[in-house]
Parts: sequence; structure tokens; C-alpha cells
Amino acid sequence: MGGHRLNLSTLVFSVAVIIVISHSAQSLPLKHSPRFLRKLAATGSPFAPPQFHYETRYFQQRLDHFSFSELPTFPQRYLISTEHWVGPQRLGPIFFYCGNEGDIEWFAQNTGFVWEIAPRFGAMVVFPEHRYYGESTPFGSAKEAYKDATTLSYLTAEQALADFSVLITDLKQNFSAKDCPVVLFGGSYGGMLAAWMRLKYPHIAVGALASSAPILQFEDIVPPETFYNIVSNSFKRESFTCFNYIKQSWNEIISTGQTYNGLERLTKTFNLCQKLKSTGDLYDWLDSAYSYLAMVNYPYPSDFLMTLPGHPIREVCKRIDGAPAGTNILERIYEGVNVYYNYTGKEKCFELDDDPHGMSGWDWQACTEMVMPMSSNQDSSMFPPYEYNYTSVKEECWNDYGVKPRPKWITTEFGGHDIHTTLKKFGSNIIFSNGLLDPWSGGSVLQNISESVVSLVTEEGAHHIDLRPSTQNDPRWLVEQRETEIKLIEGWISDYHQKNKAVFDM
Amino acid sequence: MGGHRLNLSTLVFSVAVIIVISHSAQSLPLKHSPRFLRKLAATGSPFAPPQFHYETRYFQQRLDHFSFSELPTFPQRYLISTEHWVGPQRLGPIFFYCGNEGDIEWFAQNTGFVWEIAPRFGAMVVFPEHRYYGESTPFGSAKEAYKDATTLSYLTAEQALADFSVLITDLKQNFSAKDCPVVLFGGSYGGMLAAWMRLKYPHIAVGALASSAPILQFEDIVPPETFYNIVSNSFKRESFTCFNYIKQSWNEIISTGQTYNGLERLTKTFNLCQKLKSTGDLYDWLDSAYSYLAMVNYPYPSDFLMTLPGHPIREVCKRIDGAPAGTNILERIYEGVNVYYNYTGKEKCFELDDDPHGMSGWDWQACTEMVMPMSSNQDSSMFPPYEYNYTSVKEECWNDYGVKPRPKWITTEFGGHDIHTTLKKFGSNIIFSNGLLDPWSGGSVLQNISESVVSLVTEEGAHHIDLRPSTQNDPRWLVEQRETEIKLIEGWISDYHQKNKAVFDM
Repeated sequence: MGGHRLNLSTLVFSVAVIIVISHSAQSLPLKHSPRFLRKLAATGSPFAPPQFHYETRYFQQRLDHFSFSELPTFPQRYLISTEHWVGPQRLGPIFFYCGNEGDIEWFAQNTGFVWEIAPRFGAMVVFPEHRYYGESTPFGSAKEAYKDATTLSYLTAEQALADFSVLITDLKQNFSAKDCPVVLFGGSYGGMLAAWMRLKYPHIAVGALASSAPILQFEDIVPPETFYNIVSNSFKRESFTCFNYIKQSWNEIISTGQTYNGLERLTKTFNLCQKLKSTGDLYDWLDSAYSYLAMVNYPYPSDFLMTLPGHPIREVCKRIDGAPAGTNILERIYEGVNVYYNYTGKEKCFELDDDPHGMSGWDWQACTEMVMPMSSNQDSSMFPPYEYNYTSVKEECWNDYGVKPRPKWITTEFGGHDIHTTLKKFGSNIIFSNGLLDPWSGGSVLQNISESVVSLVTEEGAHHIDLRPSTQNDPRWLVEQRETEIKLIEGWISDYHQKNKAVFDM
Repeated sequence: MGGHRLNLSTLVFSVAVIIVISHSAQSLPLKHSPRFLRKLAATGSPFAPPQFHYETRYFQQRLDHFSFSELPTFPQRYLISTEHWVGPQRLGPIFFYCGNEGDIEWFAQNTGFVWEIAPRFGAMVVFPEHRYYGESTPFGSAKEAYKDATTLSYLTAEQALADFSVLITDLKQNFSAKDCPVVLFGGSYGGMLAAWMRLKYPHIAVGALASSAPILQFEDIVPPETFYNIVSNSFKRESFTCFNYIKQSWNEIISTGQTYNGLERLTKTFNLCQKLKSTGDLYDWLDSAYSYLAMVNYPYPSDFLMTLPGHPIREVCKRIDGAPAGTNILERIYEGVNVYYNYTGKEKCFELDDDPHGMSGWDWQACTEMVMPMSSNQDSSMFPPYEYNYTSVKEECWNDYGVKPRPKWITTEFGGHDIHTTLKKFGSNIIFSNGLLDPWSGGSVLQNISESVVSLVTEEGAHHIDLRPSTQNDPRWLVEQRETEIKLIEGWISDYHQKNKAVFDM
């Protein structure tokens, strides 16, 4: 059974990006995630987002819900609006966004869908921040929380889900709203949390919209080449020559890097602020650009991660392909990535990474639970061929954090193999929405599972565009997708009201 | 929809027993659990149990599954038999008993049902021990594990469920048995674990037999008087005068205790080895006897906790009622409890408690997650009236362990309010079996929920008698109950095989 084939596509997912040129003797840095989300999420987008009105509150959470260790509690920040809530007597719903790996204000600003539909539902809106991100840091400060493996050890998805459950239970009590239905929303990792929460805490919420949630990107459930194949296809569909220029560029970079003064030449070609230390840093910078471009390959101008034109990959390829005859490959690549890194033209030069070994929350998560195998296939990928190597991931995590990953834990705790059976027998009221341009879509649920566990797939959608604020430029398929989502959510709430009425009438 | 009304009833559940004579100025010790299970579970029953054949193995478990703290692993003991297993090619099932609060060998010996039906199913049998009990103690020894709140802090139900899930995943891999269906079994607290595991880890097992599992004995889900009312009714149904003698005895004990030499007289009347320190200790001893008698009120002689005749409460009441005219109340009570404490006649005198402030695992669990409100009602209970007082429980737990209970955590984590909806929408293949003589039955699920979440209720059953080894004396209703259980389990496995075959055929 295929999913509803609407056309659609936002939050960016920090990706387990690993690049190794296997035929190169050079040792490349193995990155677990691009850094830009973290950077932006920490500072907030520089561009004025739609303004939503909320109060900011804090809730004291246990650091470890699953033990009774005497640990300091921490303040979990949450944004809350009761402006449109019709209140407990009318069983006004609670829209609860499962905060993911970043500052919650940034996610709130970029999740206009929830704010826009709340008045129609008479819903309360709550945006809780994920522990260890934004202001919700244990041990008093981000510096202390990120100090080492001991302080970081409570940054796990299960603890985050327990935070959400405890917070909802407390809010319901404080608002005398015990019987008000809760609807979960989430995008990317937050979408995974929303779907998992629906499975693990079915008594807490009546349904979940899990947008671009790659809950199957673990172990051998989906082929490890999936992610980079989809990125590559997004370039290939715009231009085969563009795809080929990029595919050829990696050897050019290596061979240039190996020549006398090669790193200086690359520094100059790519207009870097500091002298390039290794070609690996440049790979990483380019991989980030291509991967994120595929995620935010929206049909209209956006400034979610960077200020970008509509169909940004089309624009990148136009510049790569359209450079004057005689322009060499690396100059073409530079022209292309300028679309991503400098569309506004304000950057004088580029910083590759201001803190390559800095600890970020998602890097920690990727080194502990979120072990997502990623390979790059010789034929179908435009990236250098790379075979996923768990041993090197393990070593890197040990070097970076002194922690041993648990690659099988997520599937043990949440399932994943044979997810259709689990979702069919135990799941209900979950929407898995995905845009096929999104490289994460390959690790998500792309088929309808049952009457109430449905998949909304859009051909032209990228990374959870459905959650973004609506714009004048929204294509028809996007408008339709959101309407479908609203109808499904209305159905969940109406079912709940009917059941509740039946109980009252008894 | 009522449950199947068979007639049925074994493992004893360490109960949150709290007795206070509210009109007495005396300060009574607030006990969280009788001590006898722990004692027996630690030493093994002194009576020769049926011999089942198994190997004893150990699996290294993480101490905290939900954090990445650098903690020492611990060896989880498990008993395993592959004697009758038909192997992975024939998808031989794995029967997995959810170990509860005691030595796993003791539970294995007293859970004959699983061993007896395994050959019929061609099943592997696994009895894993619950962490912190028996030999499965972290930190190298029970002494270290039970040292303080810090070392005890990982003794939680969620960690135990994660232990089970990790162990099953590992066993399946080692036996190349990935596709073999797992069936969960559990009685009492172990039954709660089995039911919760089916809800929380639906991808791990295909069904659960949760015998005498009071998953609703939390917060205000069932009235707090339930437990003691059922105990009292079990006496009342045998003899109203017996019920009344017991009901009157408490004031007798208090008033005797308050007289000059009163404690000496009580010591003598009850044939205690050491001089009674307070009447509270005597209450506690008697409460344990009555409560456990109600749990093991089996229709045939047994020696699960103590060597007892069949219908032991009938025997107790015979002695209380049948004492010669002129026998005073306390002497009658002494005659009665002799049935429980000294049916073999071997005891010269009675030790009330050899270690009243010793730490036991269940006491810790009752002080942390397993906060089960218990009251005693003036009219319907034969116990002294007592209104549950969370504040005093909290104080006691702080004094005993330096830990703060989390009384709402279990319902947040596992649900409980409106459990019917949760079980109906999310549960499948669960049998809740209960005997109505069992005081824990009032906190369990006594109604059929759906086609595959069923309740088997027996009028004459006590605490999980269905899991016990079969005997020549099994009443018809018990034989029938077990047959129904076997049929239901066969149905789960057959459904699984069909689904699996469909997948293979695809």
C-alpha cells in the first residue's frame, strides 16, 4: 500500500556525515555531523521570523528518570501559549512539539504550522526544549553540561521522552486539563521522538505528526547508501553534468592538496579566511553544503539554515554548469557552493569550522545512541566512495568523548526491524510525512501501515517543509498536504471526544 | 464484558503493608513489606520442589540502560533450558519468565506451568533473575549493592525491563533465533513486568501471561481499601465470628500492651523468642500472617511460603472459633496464626523479625516507584482502621533510605488511569489471570479488554496459582484455566507463524 502521494517537503537534521576517500592515503577527519545547525540553533536565525506569541517558563526535571541517583535537577525551558485554548471544560487540545537538537525558540519560529492551526483547534501550544540544548542545560551551564562523558551521559532520547511525559502530566494537573487530548508534533529527530513517544507513551497523547523522521536509519534496516544516494539524485535530476562535476571534484581536491603549495591554492580557490590545514576539512565543508542543500531544497526562497533562493540545488547547478568555458572544476565548485554559503554576498571569506573538536549535543548523541550507518556508493553517489566502518566510528567516539556507542540500543528500545508489524499492531494515529527530495526520507516510513498510521509522501518535498510557516509561495501540493494533516488530526480529536463522551454518558 | 469465569488462583507479592491504630497514641513501625518472601527467596524453600533441568548462565548487563554513565556492569543470572526447543528453523518459541523480587531458582521451582508446557510447544525456557536479587547483584555483592541509596538507585522496573530486552536480543542473536517468537510469563510483580513489557517493548515478544499482576494498585486508580478488604473477606467468607475475633483483637493487644507487664504477657501469649519491644511489632507479624494467608489460600496443601494445609484460612478460623469456651481472644488468635507460622509444629518459639531495619529490595522499590496506597476501612476491614498517609510514607522512606518516593512515576511511565483505552488501542496478546481470593486481584485487570487482551478470573483462585506446578489435587477449574491459557498462547504463536510465513512467501 503506497502512501498518499501528495507533493510536499523543514527542519534540518544534523547528519551522521562521514567522508573518506578510500583510495587516498590521507587521513580525513571523520565528522559525525555538520556544525551549522548547532551554530544557528544556538544563536537564532539572523532573519526576522514570523512572530508567535508565547510565554517562556521553566520546569525542574530529574536528570535521570530511570534511576533514583541523587543528581541535581535542571530547568527545562518551555514556550507556552494559551491564547487560543478553549480550556479544560471544552476539552481543548494541547499541541505539544517534541523539541529537538537545538534552541527551542528557533524551532518554534520555524514550526509555523503548529501556531497557525492552533486557533482552528482551540488548542494550547507548548514547545518544550530538549535537554542539553538551548537554555535547558543541566549542571548550571552549557560549559559544565558538556564538560565530559559523565556530565553528558544523561543526554539520551529516552530521557527526553520521559521529560516530555512528566512535563505533560504536570501541565495537565496545573491546568486541570487531565482529560484534554495531547497531539504531538515533531520534525527530523523531533519527529522520531514524536513517533517513538506515541509508541512508548500511548497513554500520554492521542496522536503524532512525525515529519521527516528517519526512525529506520539504524543498523541494517535501510541500506547505508540511502542518504547520499538521495542527495546525489537531487543534483542529478537538476543536471547530470553538475552531478559529474561534483563527482570528479574530489580527486581534483586530493591531487591539488598533494602538490607543492596545494593547500594554499585550495585556500585561495575557495576563498577561505584561514589557510587550509588538510583537504579533509574542505571535503567536510563541501559535504555539509550539498547535504543541507538537499534537505532545504524548498520550492521557494527560505532562510531556515542559510538565506537561499527557491530550488537552491537548481541554482547551484546553474552556476557550476554555467561558468565560462575554461573554468576549471574547482572554480566551478566554488561558484556553486557560494549559493549555499554566501547567497546574500555578504561573506568576505569562509571559516570552515571555528571549533572542529568542540562538543555538540548531536555529536554526542551520534556517538552514543544515534548510530546511523552511512556509506557512499561508487556508482550512484556523487560523493567519494566510502564504506561504513563501525570500528572507526567507535574509535573516534572514544577519542572525542571517552564513550562507547551502543549501536543496537535504539532498535532494542524502540524497535525498527519489522517496524510495519509493530506499528500495525501497536501504533495508531501517527502521520509519517516525508518529501522524497529529503535525504532523510529514505530512513523513514514511506508506506501506509494501517487506517490510522499513515504515510504522506510528496515528490517535491524536502526536509519537513509541512511544519514550516505557510507562505504566499506555497505550491498547491503543500497546501493540500497540510489540509490532509489537519483533517487527520481533527479525526483523532473527534474520536477522542466521542470516546470521552461515551465514558461520561456511562 | 466480564472475564472468562473459570475457577482458579501463586507467587507471593511483597506488599506495601501499613498498619496504624489511628486512635492509639502509640507510635507503630510503618512497614512497607512483610519480610518472609525475601527470607525464603534468599534461602530457597526448605521443601523439595519439583526438579526442572536447566543450565545456569550469566549475562553482563549495563547498570543504567538510559544513560551513558561509566558504571560497572553486573552479571545477570539466568536459567536456560533448550532441552525441548525445536530450534530456529522451526521457529521454536522462547518462553521467557520475567524474574521478580527474589532468587530466580526459587521462582523457577515454583513456576512449574512454564516447564510443564514447554515440551508441548517445543519451546526454549529462560528464567532471568531480576537485578539486585539472588545472585544478580551489582557492585560485586549484595552487601555493596544494598549499601545506600546511591548503590540501590538502579533498582527500578524500567531498568529490569531493559535488562530483559537486551538479554532476549542477545540470546536470539547467539541462537540464530531472530525470528523465534518470545512469550513472556510473570506472576505478581513479575506479572506486572510481563504486562508492561508487552506494552513498552511490543517488538520483543508476541504475548504475555500476566498472572496476579496489580498494575492498577497506584495513586487513586483503585480504592486504597481494596487489598485489606479482600483479605478480610477471605476470612469473613469462612466464618463471621472468626473475622470478628480478629477485628476485636487489635484493641485487646493495645490495651494489654499498655498495662504493667503487658508486653511480657503478650510475649508469653504469642510464644515469642524475644521479649516484645512494642505492640507494633506484633501487629506487623499478625498482619503478615493474614495477608499472606489470603494470597496462598490454595485449595490444596502447599509449601510455597510456609507449609500449609489446603484452604488454610478455613483451618485458621477453625482454630480461632473452635477453641474451648473461656479461651480469651488473644489465645484464640495465637491458635489461629500457628497454622501459618507453625503448621509443622517444629517451631519452639517465634522470631518476629530478625532484621527489622534491614534493607530489602522490595522495600526499596516500595519507597521509590512502587508506591501503592493501602488503607484499612473501619467497617469492611478486620484490620485496624488506617487512612493512607503519603506524608508518613515519604518520611519513613527518607529515614530508611534517604530517598524520595516518586508516587506518580509509574502511571506516567506505564499508564494506569484509563488503562482500558490504552490496552484496547495498544495492547494485544495479554492474559491477565486473577483469582478473586487473592488480595492483589483488586488492583489487576478483571475484565476482557479486547479479543486478544483477556482476563481470566477464577472465583476460588488465590495468588497466581496457575503458574504453579500441577498437582494431583488440582481442582477442575484450575485444570481448565491452564488449558485456556495454553490455547491462547497457541493462538499467539500460530498467528505469528502465519504472519511470518506470509512474509517468507512474499
